[in-house]
Amino acid sequence: MTIVSSVNDAVQDAPGNPAAHAPGQPIVAVIGDGQLARMMQTAAIELGQSVRLLAGTREASAAQVAADVLLGDYREIDALRAAASGASAVTFDHEHVPSEHLRTLIEEGVSVQPGPHALLYAQDKLEQRTKLGELGFPVPRFSPVTSPEEAAAFFEEVSGAVCLKARRGGYDGHGVWFPKDLAELETLVLDLLERGVGLMAEEKVSFDRELSAMVARTPSGEVAAWPVVESEQSDGICHRAIAPAPEMSPEQAASLQRLACEIASKLDVTGVLAVELFDKGGQYWINELAMRPHNTGHWTQDGSLTSQFEQHLRAVLDLPLGATDPVAPVTVMVNTLGGPEDPAEPLPSRMAQVWRRFPAAKIHLYGKEHRPGRKLGHVNLSGTDAAATAREADLAAHYLVYGRWADGWVAE
Amino acid sequence: MTIVSSVNDAVQDAPGNPAAHAPGQPIVAVIGDGQLARMMQTAAIELGQSVRLLAGTREASAAQVAADVLLGDYREIDALRAAASGASAVTFDHEHVPSEHLRTLIEEGVSVQPGPHALLYAQDKLEQRTKLGELGFPVPRFSPVTSPEEAAAFFEEVSGAVCLKARRGGYDGHGVWFPKDLAELETLVLDLLERGVGLMAEEKVSFDRELSAMVARTPSGEVAAWPVVESEQSDGICHRAIAPAPEMSPEQAASLQRLACEIASKLDVTGVLAVELFDKGGQYWINELAMRPHNTGHWTQDGSLTSQFEQHLRAVLDLPLGATDPVAPVTVMVNTLGGPEDPAEPLPSRMAQVWRRFPAAKIHLYGKEHRPGRKLGHVNLSGTDAAATAREADLAAHYLVYGRWADGWVAE
Repeated sequence: MTIVSSVNDAVQDAPGNPAAHAPGQPIVAVIGDGQLARMMQTAAIELGQSVRLLAGTREASAAQVAADVLLGDYREIDALRAAASGASAVTFDHEHVPSEHLRTLIEEGVSVQPGPHALLYAQDKLEQRTKLGELGFPVPRFSPVTSPEEAAAFFEEVSGAVCLKARRGGYDGHGVWFPKDLAELETLVLDLLERGVGLMAEEKVSFDRELSAMVARTPSGEVAAWPVVESEQSDGICHRAIAPAPEMSPEQAASLQRLACEIASKLDVTGVLAVELFDKGGQYWINELAMRPHNTGHWTQDGSLTSQFEQHLRAVLDLPLGATDPVAPVTVMVNTLGGPEDPAEPLPSRMAQVWRRFPAAKIHLYGKEHRPGRKLGHVNLSGTDAAATAREADLAAHYLVYGRWADGWVAE
Repeated sequence: MTIVSSVNDAVQDAPGNPAAHAPGQPIVAVIGDGQLARMMQTAAIELGQSVRLLAGTREASAAQVAADVLLGDYREIDALRAAASGASAVTFDHEHVPSEHLRTLIEEGVSVQPGPHALLYAQDKLEQRTKLGELGFPVPRFSPVTSPEEAAAFFEEVSGAVCLKARRGGYDGHGVWFPKDLAELETLVLDLLERGVGLMAEEKVSFDRELSAMVARTPSGEVAAWPVVESEQSDGICHRAIAPAPEMSPEQAASLQRLACEIASKLDVTGVLAVELFDKGGQYWINELAMRPHNTGHWTQDGSLTSQFEQHLRAVLDLPLGATDPVAPVTVMVNTLGGPEDPAEPLPSRMAQVWRRFPAAKIHLYGKEHRPGRKLGHVNLSGTDAAATAREADLAAHYLVYGRWADGWVAE
């Protein structure tokens, strides 16, 4: 009689799955279960490691493919404690873990990377603007908003070019509003404050394009920068990234890399830091900070000697950082966001169509079910010409989403 | 009260872990739990998939990091059936699954890739030599050996330059003998036949170097070849691979790529095929065939647009193959084999030393405990000059194994 047992049937003595980790190798506990955690698991496997996840559901993107998964709520200290138990470092695939819990973990001897004192500036936009402004980094004009009167005064100050933001919890265009007049602003402010949403306002900067300067930093202070990329947003969500950013002088690129390195050092960021920027004719303002692998860094998986996911793991473990050189003249990343409906053509067949036309296209998928607008995956494509490569990457991603060629192409 | 449950506690209804696989994505069942299966899991995750493993132990290299693991014996049909249940394809990280079981699976409607009719030529060296010879491919002179007399006759025919091989089960130098005289040959043959080992003999070819020509082929017949690599063996185990093979004309390289493509097509191989070759001044003999990702193809993880692990998954699922272009002028892979003892310096510290000196070195580890001579990992390094890159990759791998620099280098 053959004994076939599923490893997943086994009863565990310790939290998590000790068999998921090689003896002598550190365990990185990742709080979160999205695609960023998923791609950290990929990187971990190749380093001889395996991440431990604190996940919300076992079907979540990262929980699907990880060998050591705890189900629990990242807002509860017990869940965080269980995930951190025996881990060499705790890190995140999102910014929403309560700071007080992170401070508790640190008091209990856990290495939390990045620490809550740095993470604050990715969690709270007002704290971030205030701090960056104090340090002399270029930020748009801003103001706290605790009353409609304060909002109205700022509206006047910037001649109506106002962007209202929730201080916490926003992402991918959520938590950002562009009121068209003072009345709309005041109504919005009243309504949001009543619902307990902390607010700030800032000047709506007019810009030519958006950029992202990404670096990684270790607790020991080593910093490494990737080439600066141009990113294109659509409805507040990253749609495309071109690495390196076209039409940028080496001096401009170097100065933005330095800027991102300085921010990482001055805020004591550890792990990967993305500095999103507005570019208006070579003048720059900081738009957002993210302290984790970032959508605008997905190109590094196929376009750089060291991917942002490997670099993040190395950084939070205080290991030396990898070379960030690009491996091609240009690499373009295009997101595949769920379309209005899931195409009739099955996903593997759509992948086959893309590969048949573009054998160099690297398809990365997150194991998520279709939902309109949801980030389901991305396509990386390297080439020599930015415009041509971007066009091909767009076509590939479009086919994955819609099951048809945007340019009407027909295979012979 | 926080509820923290390990996913691994859950009781499964179906064999395996259904939550490990995204809806609409195919499941590839991998028979085997070694590093090849481990690196297939890496590739699968990025494609939005996850492999299902049939593993011997849950601590095995691949079982550590896979989310859907069945424990069972690959020599038993029930275990194979359970692994194959619901899978779009069954494939392997070794050649030792009994053919009769594979035929049974196929009769039951399972897609087995490569099929047993092809796999036979990787399982049985005599069948392989006979078939390749019949097809006109260059193989050393060979003979079946069913008695000491037959062995002696062949010894005479090749003037004593005899290599004796077990027909089945050999790998990494196991199952190969080089008797120094006729008496030793006859004793060996008698002894091995008595122990039931099927044997063949072949001419010991004198060669300048070894090469490996790797291709992938789909059930539909698409074939894609990587650049031919030079491989260096030490005690029968692959030590190093240089891609592309130095000092080889484009015509020679193309002819070996064609050779490998033809072998794949004529033997109906699916998935990755490695054709190991002897090179004597531009004359070539086939040494071995492997029908799975192969040690001489590990360089593709960092040196080619498509890694052999991604390509293998695409091939066995009959999806279009990826571009195999190199991403650097040269990429060198060096194995890290366990030294006589595990160094006192912990592994993460050794990795740090290597990265500090060579920030471009890509370290891949298999999560295995130290054992002398065991394949524990490999280092990939890309560069512009083959000799310089090989020297640096050697130094990096040497440090990982011994915890010291072979050239006495001291960091400032």
